[in-house]
Amino acid sequence: MDILAVLNLSEIALYFSKMSMFPLFDLAYYIVSILYLKYEPGSVEVSRRNPIASWMCAMLYCFASYIMADILLGESPLHYFNNTSHILLATAVWYLIFYCPLNLFYKCVAFMPVKLILTAMKEVVRVRKISMGVVHAHHAYHHGWIIMALVGWAKGAGVALISNFEQLIRGVWKPETNEFLNMSFPTKASLVGAVIFTLQQARWLPISKHNVVFLFTIFMVVTKVFMTATHSHGSPFAPIEAFICPIIFGNACGIYDDHD
Amino acid sequence: MDILAVLNLSEIALYFSKMSMFPLFDLAYYIVSILYLKYEPGSVEVSRRNPIASWMCAMLYCFASYIMADILLGESPLHYFNNTSHILLATAVWYLIFYCPLNLFYKCVAFMPVKLILTAMKEVVRVRKISMGVVHAHHAYHHGWIIMALVGWAKGAGVALISNFEQLIRGVWKPETNEFLNMSFPTKASLVGAVIFTLQQARWLPISKHNVVFLFTIFMVVTKVFMTATHSHGSPFAPIEAFICPIIFGNACGIYDDHD
Amino acid sequence: MDILAVLNLSEIALYFSKMSMFPLFDLAYYIVSILYLKYEPGSVEVSRRNPIASWMCAMLYCFASYIMADILLGESPLHYFNNTSHILLATAVWYLIFYCPLNLFYKCVAFMPVKLILTAMKEVVRVRKISMGVVHAHHAYHHGWIIMALVGWAKGAGVALISNFEQLIRGVWKPETNEFLNMSFPTKASLVGAVIFTLQQARWLPISKHNVVFLFTIFMVVTKVFMTATHSHGSPFAPIEAFICPIIFGNACGIYDDHD
Repeated sequence: MDILAVLNLSEIALYFSKMSMFPLFDLAYYIVSILYLKYEPGSVEVSRRNPIASWMCAMLYCFASYIMADILLGESPLHYFNNTSHILLATAVWYLIFYCPLNLFYKCVAFMPVKLILTAMKEVVRVRKISMGVVHAHHAYHHGWIIMALVGWAKGAGVALISNFEQLIRGVWKPETNEFLNMSFPTKASLVGAVIFTLQQARWLPISKHNVVFLFTIFMVVTKVFMTATHSHGSPFAPIEAFICPIIFGNACGIYDDHD
Repeated sequence: MDILAVLNLSEIALYFSKMSMFPLFDLAYYIVSILYLKYEPGSVEVSRRNPIASWMCAMLYCFASYIMADILLGESPLHYFNNTSHILLATAVWYLIFYCPLNLFYKCVAFMPVKLILTAMKEVVRVRKISMGVVHAHHAYHHGWIIMALVGWAKGAGVALISNFEQLIRGVWKPETNEFLNMSFPTKASLVGAVIFTLQQARWLPISKHNVVFLFTIFMVVTKVFMTATHSHGSPFAPIEAFICPIIFGNACGIYDDHD
Repeated sequence: MDILAVLNLSEIALYFSKMSMFPLFDLAYYIVSILYLKYEPGSVEVSRRNPIASWMCAMLYCFASYIMADILLGESPLHYFNNTSHILLATAVWYLIFYCPLNLFYKCVAFMPVKLILTAMKEVVRVRKISMGVVHAHHAYHHGWIIMALVGWAKGAGVALISNFEQLIRGVWKPETNEFLNMSFPTKASLVGAVIFTLQQARWLPISKHNVVFLFTIFMVVTKVFMTATHSHGSPFAPIEAFICPIIFGNACGIYDDHD
C-alpha cells in the first residue's frame, strides 16, 4: 500500500487497530442502536406496558450480532452475556433512553451533531465486529471461507437480519418483508465488508489486516454520517448494482432495493 | 435462618432437597402440563388429525424447559431425550390424556382434588428445575450472573416462553401477543425465583440453598394451588408491581398485566 | 437375509453402500431440490428482485438436512458449509436453474425422462442421509434411540420440516399449515426409514446395515419415481394408516392427510 505509506497512514491504521472499543465506542454503539429501537412504531408503548419485553428487544439491538455469531458457530447464544459490565452498560442506556425524566437523555443523543458523532463511532465498532467475526470463524474453520463471510456478515448486520423475530417480541409481525428481501445499506455494506475481510484472511488481497479495517472504517463512517445528516436512504452501491445485476442476473435487481 | 432452626424446618428442607423427582413428581408434571395442552382450543382436533404434531406439542409442554436451557447453554436441544424412560413416560401420559377410551384418564386427573395435588407436585418440580438451571449455568459460566438468571427463568417458565412456536406446530399463529408481553403468574414467579437462586449462588443471600428451595417451593405450591382452586388469574405480584413500576418506569405497567 | 443371499443381492448391496455420493448423486440432489424451489409460487420473482434471498432459500433446499441435524446435535449449523466445493456446486446449480439464458438448463432437467433419473438419484442420497444421520446421532448418544430417530428423520425430510421458515425468507407466511400437520410422502417415508435404521442400529433387526439401506433405497426410488411419473400425491402408506390409526388413535387420521 504505497499510498498509505506515503501519507504515513499505515502507522495511524496500526495505532487505530489497537484502540480499545470498551467503554466509549461500545457506549456509542448501544446509544445509537437503542435510539433506532425507540424510533420503531409502538416500541415506546411496549416499554411502558412491559419493560421486560422492551429490555429484551434492547439487548437484541445491542448484542444480536454476538448472539447470531455464537449460534452460527455452535456456541451458547448467551456467551456474550458473560460480560456483565457490557450488559449493565447497555441496560443503563436502555433505561435512560426510554425512562429518563423529561426525555432528557433522548433529546441530547438525538440532537443531530451529537447523533452524527455517535453514528460515526458506531460504524467504527461495526467494522471491528465484522473483522473479529471473520477471525472468530477462521479459528473454528480454517478453510471455511463461506462460513467466515456469513459469520462476518451476521456480526456486521446485527439485529437487522433477525428483525422479524425481534419485532415478534414486541407483538409486531410483518412476514411480507425482511432484511434479505429489502436490504438496507448497513446490511449490504456488512456483506461487502465480510467478503473483503474473508479475502484478506485467505491472503488473496495484498494488504495487511489493519489497513483493510482502517480503509473500510473510513468508507463506512463517511457514508453513514453523510446518509444520517442528509436523511438519505439511497445506497452508494446502487450504481454498481444497476451495472452488474443485469449482466449476472438478467435484471436490474438493485432498482427495487432503493425504495426501502 | 433462626426461624427455620426454631421450627426444626431446616432438617425437613435438607431431607426435601434430597428427594428424587423421578418418577412420581415428574409424572405429575407431565400430567398437568399435557392437561393444559388439552385445554388449548383446537388441540383435540389436532390430536385426531395428526398424532405426530400433537405428540411434538406434548413433548414441548413437558420438556421445553430442558430444550431451552440446553439451547441457551450451547448444547444439543435433544440432550434430555437421552433419558428414554422420561420420554416414554410422558408419551404414555400424552396417549392416555388424548386417546383413553371414554376420556376416563382425563376425567380422573381433571377432577379438582386430584388436579390440586398434581398441581402442587408440578410446582415442586418447577422450583427444582429453576434451581438446577441456575447451577447448570453456573458450571458453564462461573460469573455469568445474567446467564444464570436467564437459564433459570427458561427452566421455570418452560413452554410458555416459546408458546408462539408451539402453537405454530398446531397451525395457530397469534403474533400480536406472547409471554413477554403478557406474563402469566408462573412466568413472573419463575423469573423472581431465578433471580433469588442466582443471588444465593453468588452468596449474596445469607441462606443455604436447600432452605431457599424449600421456602420458594412452599410459596409456589400455596399460591398456585390457591389460584387453581379459585380459578383466579390475579397475580400476587400485582400490588408490588403497582407500587414499584410507577417509581422505576414512570407508569403503572403492572396494571395492564392483570388482565391476562 | 436368505432371499438376498439367493439372489446374490447382498454383494450388490455391499458394493452399493461403498459408492461415493459426491459429485454425481449430490449434483442430482441439488438439481431436483432447486427445481422444486423454482416450482414454488413467487420464487422466480424473488430470484429476479433479490438474488441473495433466493440463494439462501436454495441453500436451505439443498442443505437443510445437514443444518437441522447439526442444530439438533448441538453443533454449528454452518458446519457443512466447510465443504466449499459442495456449496459452490449447489450455487452453480441454483444459478443455472434460475438465470440460464432461454431457461435452457431448467428445460433440460425438467424434461420428464431426465427428471425421473435425477429423482431416483435424489432418493438414493436421501436414504444414505437418513442412515448417516442415525449413525451420527449414535456417536453422540449411544443409547439415545429417540434422538437417533429424530435426527435421521430431519436428515431425510430436509427443508420440508422447516418450510415455514424457508418461506419466510421469501416473504411468504402460511402459519395455518406445516409439514407436521400435512405430511408429504417423503417426510413420512423418512420417519419410517429413520425408525427402521434406528432399530437396526440397536441390533433389534436381524439384518445388516448395508442390506437395510439397499432395500429401503429400492423402495424409495421405485415409489418416488412412480409418483413423479404419474403426478400422483397418494401415499402408499394410506392403506396402512387407514387400518392402524382407528385402532390406536380412535380415528382415521390418515384420511385427512391424503389431500396434501
